[in-house]
Amino acid sequence: MIAFGVDLGATHVRAAKVEIRGERARIVRHARNKVGTRRDPATVVGIIARVLDRVDALRGRAPIAVAAAAQLSADGKVVRNSPNLGWRDVPLHGLLGTRLGRPALVENDINAAAVGEARFGAGQGSRHVLVALLGSGLGNGLVLNGKLYRGASRVAGELGHVKVRGPRGRLCGCGQRGCLEAYVGGVKFAERVCDDLSRGVPSSLQTLFDKDPETINVAAVERAAHEQGDAYARRRWREAADLLGTALANAVSTLNPEVVVLGGGVILHCPRLYERVARLTGERSLALASEAVRVVPAALGDDAGVFGAAALAAGV
Amino acid sequence: MIAFGVDLGATHVRAAKVEIRGERARIVRHARNKVGTRRDPATVVGIIARVLDRVDALRGRAPIAVAAAAQLSADGKVVRNSPNLGWRDVPLHGLLGTRLGRPALVENDINAAAVGEARFGAGQGSRHVLVALLGSGLGNGLVLNGKLYRGASRVAGELGHVKVRGPRGRLCGCGQRGCLEAYVGGVKFAERVCDDLSRGVPSSLQTLFDKDPETINVAAVERAAHEQGDAYARRRWREAADLLGTALANAVSTLNPEVVVLGGGVILHCPRLYERVARLTGERSLALASEAVRVVPAALGDDAGVFGAAALAAGV
Repeated sequence: MIAFGVDLGATHVRAAKVEIRGERARIVRHARNKVGTRRDPATVVGIIARVLDRVDALRGRAPIAVAAAAQLSADGKVVRNSPNLGWRDVPLHGLLGTRLGRPALVENDINAAAVGEARFGAGQGSRHVLVALLGSGLGNGLVLNGKLYRGASRVAGELGHVKVRGPRGRLCGCGQRGCLEAYVGGVKFAERVCDDLSRGVPSSLQTLFDKDPETINVAAVERAAHEQGDAYARRRWREAADLLGTALANAVSTLNPEVVVLGGGVILHCPRLYERVARLTGERSLALASEAVRVVPAALGDDAGVFGAAALAAGV
Repeated sequence: MIAFGVDLGATHVRAAKVEIRGERARIVRHARNKVGTRRDPATVVGIIARVLDRVDALRGRAPIAVAAAAQLSADGKVVRNSPNLGWRDVPLHGLLGTRLGRPALVENDINAAAVGEARFGAGQGSRHVLVALLGSGLGNGLVLNGKLYRGASRVAGELGHVKVRGPRGRLCGCGQRGCLEAYVGGVKFAERVCDDLSRGVPSSLQTLFDKDPETINVAAVERAAHEQGDAYARRRWREAADLLGTALANAVSTLNPEVVVLGGGVILHCPRLYERVARLTGERSLALASEAVRVVPAALGDDAGVFGAAALAAGV
């Protein structure tokens, strides 16, 4: 069958016409447009409609879903909050319905990417899949019994906010302290290293930092730790790897999945981090759960979102 | 409809005829027999059949399920390991089928109790329920989308084995180190306090310990901590409460359930532990998940297993 998946990101809208045949899917045609500085809902919904028209102006009755970097209401119809788009309480489902002339499903972008990887990517063929995407933050999606698991209010899978330190731990973007994301998320990780460097901690990273603080990220710290034997970098890198690996191991003990998919920009650019996290995910989970799980790298890259949106639209 | 639930415990077999009407269930009739020192599979299956006959010799075609304190094979047909019964690789499903003249479903006892609480007890009316039972160990069951979630190999929900300490943490019964159960399970908790007391740690518990080490348990430590202001007891009690509360909060951030049911003998006898764990489960989980969850005490006591087994048998 044919379904349309749309990925509504911070800077671009991408749409794809996806052909789904059982466990396989392929992108028949796709297109993308920039989202400019005008980001009011009507303008953005107009861009979505135009990108869909460029992909296939005669869409027939094929179903459509839009994956948005947003926190949705429990019924999935309203964008409660999207810092990327600067939206609060936008009835996206209704606006899309009016503009496109029929209902389109709305889903969180991480959930959609998780469905894409679970159905057509690294988790293909498995019924229970945990997807962890480490980028500026840590995003997670759960596919259980072959279906996206959303929980009571659409926030299931928030491993970024499991507590890995006590109430005096580092402050997270969510307002709480000690969350995993405050230690491993790309933005928070870099912030902390830059703080330490600006306070003069001895490290080979000082040269990079003095030249351009923007170059300080997890990948730079991984290189300093492993290629320059930098003790400070090693400590930071190791802490992040161990906290993420242990949290994923705990999720494996809790969920007993068949597959853990590790992806996202940070993982992609840090092969040693991937290796250590994957190993700890197995080693630190309950033996019987560990035996049942494979840890694999994400396979679909930036296509995961449109594939997953198409699968959700198709209800498969 | 009518279904039969059997609870195969360490010392007794209990069977109940359960009438299920939508979201309500009641025990129409029940009976129990001791399991003696002879615990070979044929003898135990014979006891199960006789207890069922006492409940209702004319069972018609009503479905039957047996909840056993055992680790089952992935297909649920073989008891891989039951320390209580001293069984290894016992084909319980086949033996029951032969003895009862028709197939009976076999389920782990904690999972069955979780289904009982979720369907007919403290979680009634909710689709996503996490049940945590703190007794000699920590047992957990997950009901997600209204169904028992078993995971890839029937070990989903093993919160007792999430790691709360590093690789040099306390040794758990599972062979790994740093597991939650090694800090909060009734047996491990008492072992540790007795170790400390035998090494002469200053505590009001020394008197109890000298009289009878068997009286040292979580409830005694809770009383010493709160009624006698014992600093050592307070430290142990507080550590257990905080580790369990944080682990449950993390499970709430991961699973976004509607209800967390807290039960088991230790919780039942430690009202202050219940209060602190319930509070931390809310406070330390992601705000949006915390808003969606209620933490409630278990409601069915020892009946949870037979109710859950009956629900599983009935497939409702």
